[in-house]
Amino acid sequence: MDGWIIQEHGIPSEDQIITRGNNFLCANGFIGVRGTLEEYGSTQKTGVMINGIYDSHEGRWSEPVNLPNPLYLRVQDDQGRDLQICPSSPANHSHGIDLAAGIHWRNSLLSRTENPSAPVLGLKSQRFVSQEVPGLILQRLELDWTHSPGSSWQLTMGVDPDIWDINGPHLHKITPRMKLIDGVMVEEIQMETQERGIPIRIARHARVVEGGLEPLSPASEGRGSSPTGGLSAFKTVESPQNRLTVDVHILVSWGDREDFSRVFTDLPRLAARNWQYWEENQRKHWHHLWQASDVRISGDSEAMKALRFSLYHLLSLLPPEGEALSVPARGLSGQVYKGAIFWDTEIFMQPFYELTHPRRARSLILNRIQGLPGALKKAAQYGYRGAFYAWEAQDQGEEACTDYNITDVITGRPMRTFFREKQIHISADIVFALGNYILRTGDREILDQGGRQVIGECARFYLSRCHLRPDLNRYELLDVTGPDEYHERVHNNFFTNLMVKHCLEFALETGSLQDPGEVRLAEDVVQRLYIPQPWGSAGIIPQFDGYLTLRQVGIEEVLEGRLHPNEYLGGENGLARWTQVIKQADVVLGLYLFPQVIEDELIRANWEYYEQRTEHGSSLSATAYAGIAARIGNTQDALQYFYTSARIDLDGRAKQYVGDLYIGGTHPAAQGGAWQIVVFGFLGLQITRQGLSLDPHLPSHWREVECPLVLRGTQIRITVSEDSIAIYYRGKTHYIEPGTVLAWQSITGEGADHA
Amino acid sequence: MDGWIIQEHGIPSEDQIITRGNNFLCANGFIGVRGTLEEYGSTQKTGVMINGIYDSHEGRWSEPVNLPNPLYLRVQDDQGRDLQICPSSPANHSHGIDLAAGIHWRNSLLSRTENPSAPVLGLKSQRFVSQEVPGLILQRLELDWTHSPGSSWQLTMGVDPDIWDINGPHLHKITPRMKLIDGVMVEEIQMETQERGIPIRIARHARVVEGGLEPLSPASEGRGSSPTGGLSAFKTVESPQNRLTVDVHILVSWGDREDFSRVFTDLPRLAARNWQYWEENQRKHWHHLWQASDVRISGDSEAMKALRFSLYHLLSLLPPEGEALSVPARGLSGQVYKGAIFWDTEIFMQPFYELTHPRRARSLILNRIQGLPGALKKAAQYGYRGAFYAWEAQDQGEEACTDYNITDVITGRPMRTFFREKQIHISADIVFALGNYILRTGDREILDQGGRQVIGECARFYLSRCHLRPDLNRYELLDVTGPDEYHERVHNNFFTNLMVKHCLEFALETGSLQDPGEVRLAEDVVQRLYIPQPWGSAGIIPQFDGYLTLRQVGIEEVLEGRLHPNEYLGGENGLARWTQVIKQADVVLGLYLFPQVIEDELIRANWEYYEQRTEHGSSLSATAYAGIAARIGNTQDALQYFYTSARIDLDGRAKQYVGDLYIGGTHPAAQGGAWQIVVFGFLGLQITRQGLSLDPHLPSHWREVECPLVLRGTQIRITVSEDSIAIYYRGKTHYIEPGTVLAWQSITGEGADHA
Repeated sequence: MDGWIIQEHGIPSEDQIITRGNNFLCANGFIGVRGTLEEYGSTQKTGVMINGIYDSHEGRWSEPVNLPNPLYLRVQDDQGRDLQICPSSPANHSHGIDLAAGIHWRNSLLSRTENPSAPVLGLKSQRFVSQEVPGLILQRLELDWTHSPGSSWQLTMGVDPDIWDINGPHLHKITPRMKLIDGVMVEEIQMETQERGIPIRIARHARVVEGGLEPLSPASEGRGSSPTGGLSAFKTVESPQNRLTVDVHILVSWGDREDFSRVFTDLPRLAARNWQYWEENQRKHWHHLWQASDVRISGDSEAMKALRFSLYHLLSLLPPEGEALSVPARGLSGQVYKGAIFWDTEIFMQPFYELTHPRRARSLILNRIQGLPGALKKAAQYGYRGAFYAWEAQDQGEEACTDYNITDVITGRPMRTFFREKQIHISADIVFALGNYILRTGDREILDQGGRQVIGECARFYLSRCHLRPDLNRYELLDVTGPDEYHERVHNNFFTNLMVKHCLEFALETGSLQDPGEVRLAEDVVQRLYIPQPWGSAGIIPQFDGYLTLRQVGIEEVLEGRLHPNEYLGGENGLARWTQVIKQADVVLGLYLFPQVIEDELIRANWEYYEQRTEHGSSLSATAYAGIAARIGNTQDALQYFYTSARIDLDGRAKQYVGDLYIGGTHPAAQGGAWQIVVFGFLGLQITRQGLSLDPHLPSHWREVECPLVLRGTQIRITVSEDSIAIYYRGKTHYIEPGTVLAWQSITGEGADHA
Repeated sequence: MDGWIIQEHGIPSEDQIITRGNNFLCANGFIGVRGTLEEYGSTQKTGVMINGIYDSHEGRWSEPVNLPNPLYLRVQDDQGRDLQICPSSPANHSHGIDLAAGIHWRNSLLSRTENPSAPVLGLKSQRFVSQEVPGLILQRLELDWTHSPGSSWQLTMGVDPDIWDINGPHLHKITPRMKLIDGVMVEEIQMETQERGIPIRIARHARVVEGGLEPLSPASEGRGSSPTGGLSAFKTVESPQNRLTVDVHILVSWGDREDFSRVFTDLPRLAARNWQYWEENQRKHWHHLWQASDVRISGDSEAMKALRFSLYHLLSLLPPEGEALSVPARGLSGQVYKGAIFWDTEIFMQPFYELTHPRRARSLILNRIQGLPGALKKAAQYGYRGAFYAWEAQDQGEEACTDYNITDVITGRPMRTFFREKQIHISADIVFALGNYILRTGDREILDQGGRQVIGECARFYLSRCHLRPDLNRYELLDVTGPDEYHERVHNNFFTNLMVKHCLEFALETGSLQDPGEVRLAEDVVQRLYIPQPWGSAGIIPQFDGYLTLRQVGIEEVLEGRLHPNEYLGGENGLARWTQVIKQADVVLGLYLFPQVIEDELIRANWEYYEQRTEHGSSLSATAYAGIAARIGNTQDALQYFYTSARIDLDGRAKQYVGDLYIGGTHPAAQGGAWQIVVFGFLGLQITRQGLSLDPHLPSHWREVECPLVLRGTQIRITVSEDSIAIYYRGKTHYIEPGTVLAWQSITGEGADHA
């Protein structure tokens, strides 16, 4: 299936171990299993991450919990010598993922250490994380020793306690139990998190479906002998086929989830269904996932491949329906960025989710509703009212971002940063995304299920955070940090002020503020909040007060000034701080999200001005630059930025380390950005209160783009080619002109706009 | 005369060359001549500074202009061998200043290089800067070679072009001219400043009054041969007395001063009066200066000496009447701190001047009135109305402070600092001082001569600089730096908010705002400007929003964290920035200047809280700590801080260098602070709208303090001993009780309070 298989050949380098681990991730929004090989341990960054469980050990950063690896397999010969991937040819090892079904596989020929070039054993494995049952992981292991018939092998299998942690260990009281259920040994590991004592269980059910295994006792030496381990050693039973196939069912649960106590007993029920059953089930689920979201690009197979890879990761992270889970900035690929939820989710990922899988996208909103207590607490901590959402939100909306988020590589000292304290746009970003969610999905019930409270409390925060400058009779937002984090503590950041104005407008519109005094104040602030205006003959919008007076200097010159290659460019004395060099789209992001704010000619001027000054120190930056570039017809630059965004993980070019700190992993926000670039950029989709319009600017070699969406419950399919725009919904294809608005009544078949 | 002579013996070390140069300075507020020896050049930091002339060369910091040294003398024997101070005994060289008359002298035995221990020549010199004629400098040189009778000596004398500059050279087109007037060779050097071409003239008239000299032609080798020089070589004429006395009259003028063009011709007229005449004249002037200001402390000769030394320097810097000159932060001792006027003048020096020499103190006010255009320009530059005075003011109020005022010793990079941009209290400081000037001197005419405009424009500045926080219905001052410069960019700095409130009140009171809208706004801001209040059970006033939540850590611990001994503790990532360690009195200075703001018990608590946290990185810090300590009866600590302030130059402990940058010089603000500690602290003098009161707390061993003041034109003399407070004025001694207010009517004899 062209474009559906992503794979690599040959023995991976250290870097490739990490990037394959990221790119071949299997997940279901609930559990993420890194794409590592069975024999890997913590050094190779194995990961079985649960979404939403955080732990802090010995006062260090709180981060998501990585579980013991239940997919572990070690293969030795009968003398206890380890087998390894046979290095004689890259063809001896292939490793990849089937994007169509989220199935990870490896296919290797193994050899003995003392004769590495002679293969003696074939090892195949497949695995996936079930879309049907959130805690279920399936693994099939196939050994084939027709290369050395009659041999016998020792296998160590089970739940490997060698856990890769950044600030761990997070688990203790790890207790393995074994139970024979229906003639199969079911193994269960119970454990607790260190900080809050959240109980976690992993049950593992392994069934030999071809060939035979007998237990080796005691466990073989090495890793298997760990006292906390859940590993067991076996020996293959001689058989004429020289093959062994083992199917493993793994069930994970934790905390107060209702299924927690049943894990041990539920597993045999699930394991009663065989591999074929679960694989078909998985393919069926993924087929539905793709049906609702697969964008087809004709004429550019590279773009198609990069986008499909991006969407695969986004779909893998889509939380199950009915949860209140969100998507961390590095997905479920590890503990990086504390596994926290950033604005990345709302601004960069959520549009894809809500326009393709609205019912599951609701989980993102519920996650923020659930996080309201943390946001109220944070606002109060800084002396404000209402809800100031965490810059890095963990469970219950707790702020995980510290005041010292970066280490100065020159002095080795922690550097005071203001991401946490001054990046106040986060609350408005959440309201903005909530507004779009309602507009696009029609789910107004969310307002009564906590949404209105979120909107009201965010608005209340800004009513206490804004200030009136009396002589100019305008409200200002002072001492903030916008998306461009190289310029902290600025006044009247264009993006922030736009966002806050929208938040207050939306709060008034949805009746989220009740107090008449607050309503009056909000109306006044909406009227008089200062929005930086295009300036001078060039019409450039200053990113914040005084931005245009900062030193104009090339990005290269700034970079050349570094005393250390990892020197941070931001901070009050950072090399970029007093120049016009910025980290990422800021004004341009404002123009991208609020397309009506200035005229097209000025949009072009601002894009060009800021694009030259943007260092793109964030993977989020490309989306807005590409989106605007496509909108103004600059499809060449747009396509470059699209590739930057969509291929960030495929190319493995993103930084893996800053100093000693691992920051690698997947980039779902960039992947969500890639989708936006195609849909909002190249197709020029706009969804407003009036309805839907398209204003396509396709790259010249793109023949056609086909894109499914769900709008207020109606499935639609857009097909854009050079000379036509077709929209299919409710059984009929409609052709429209660029910029023409297709009204909501037409799309949903309902009487009037109800959102 | 005990306590009037400050002197040193022996050959000075390099450090002592600098400190003697500072401490033995002669000045008249117009011209300052560093206390260096005649044979010194730029390496020994010779200085003839003019007050108010600044120059910038090749885009570097603008700084005051140092002139060629007209006091130069080099003594060689008849073979051209230099004589030097005979090193055999410290008694061979004494060097000092007569504080009673501002007369500098040296008295040395010189010897030849090849036989250094045998004195061959006595060299005495005296010099002073005339209090009668602002541009006039007198010098008497006396050579006595009775040790080696019959010898002959070569003397090189004149105007030495070897100028000590920090960012120079500042002078060019240096042209010497000679003219025989009445049989005496008068020498004139004309020159211009580099940047603005301000013309400067020095005329020098040397008369041999004992012995004889004949010209040597050509000039002897060495320094005298400089083509730009004004040096001439002579040979002593044989005489039976073996003595030579030369009296030198020097006249300096510049720019558009009316006497500029007459310098050459005026000098012979001035030189017609001999040394004795000018010396008597000088003594008479200084007698009057001291009569109006000499504070006598009985029972503590050390304190007496330190205070008298302090007052000498303050008196030396007192500008002549009718000028618009002020006093730079390092006086006239060099180019340090760009020769700029800081708040040092208004808050620390002006009280002494206005209460002892009110007519000359007026010059300080006129200087700020003249500086209004610069302040208006600065406010506009930052987008505000009104007058934002320069943090470092040069002529016409130009801002000399740069955005990068400090070099990071670790990276070697200029460090972004906010002294210039955020230390907004400066305008209010000036208004505060102007208010006190009017209250104390009764000079309300100053209001119509520009004072009202200054007050109005400063108030207007704050009306545009303050912000209303709508939910709390209060005005705030955001993003400011208070006196504690280790914490830049804070919100609601107690000191700043107090000062601004006073400024607006005073503007309303003096009718300095005319626009009815502005008047209403000012009234509203006065009503609702937030002043941080004592907090918690301890009643500590937070220095700014969030101060009390900063890390509590000892000063030593902060200092120990330095990677370099000169590491700056401030700046956004400075070691002190996120701790409670502060640079200097800030809250305590507010309490010192506004004694009624909180109750005495809370004053004590705040003093103790902040005192522990103050690193005293500024020489200004001691004044407020001592002032409050004395007020609350803690005379022991008060006395320690008094010594810190009064002896800063005498002890020569202040830093001379930061890295390569020379920052030495005199500390008139600390000296003004020393006077305030005695008068406002130990005597407990308070001058209010009602009148004068005293609440003395003398150190236990101080028997009596006697202090002259001028209050609204009435000369008064306060005598405080352990058991009585006597005030003598208008021919009568009044005894009052501590805290009793002596009404203005009683003091001035006028009908009612008119200020």
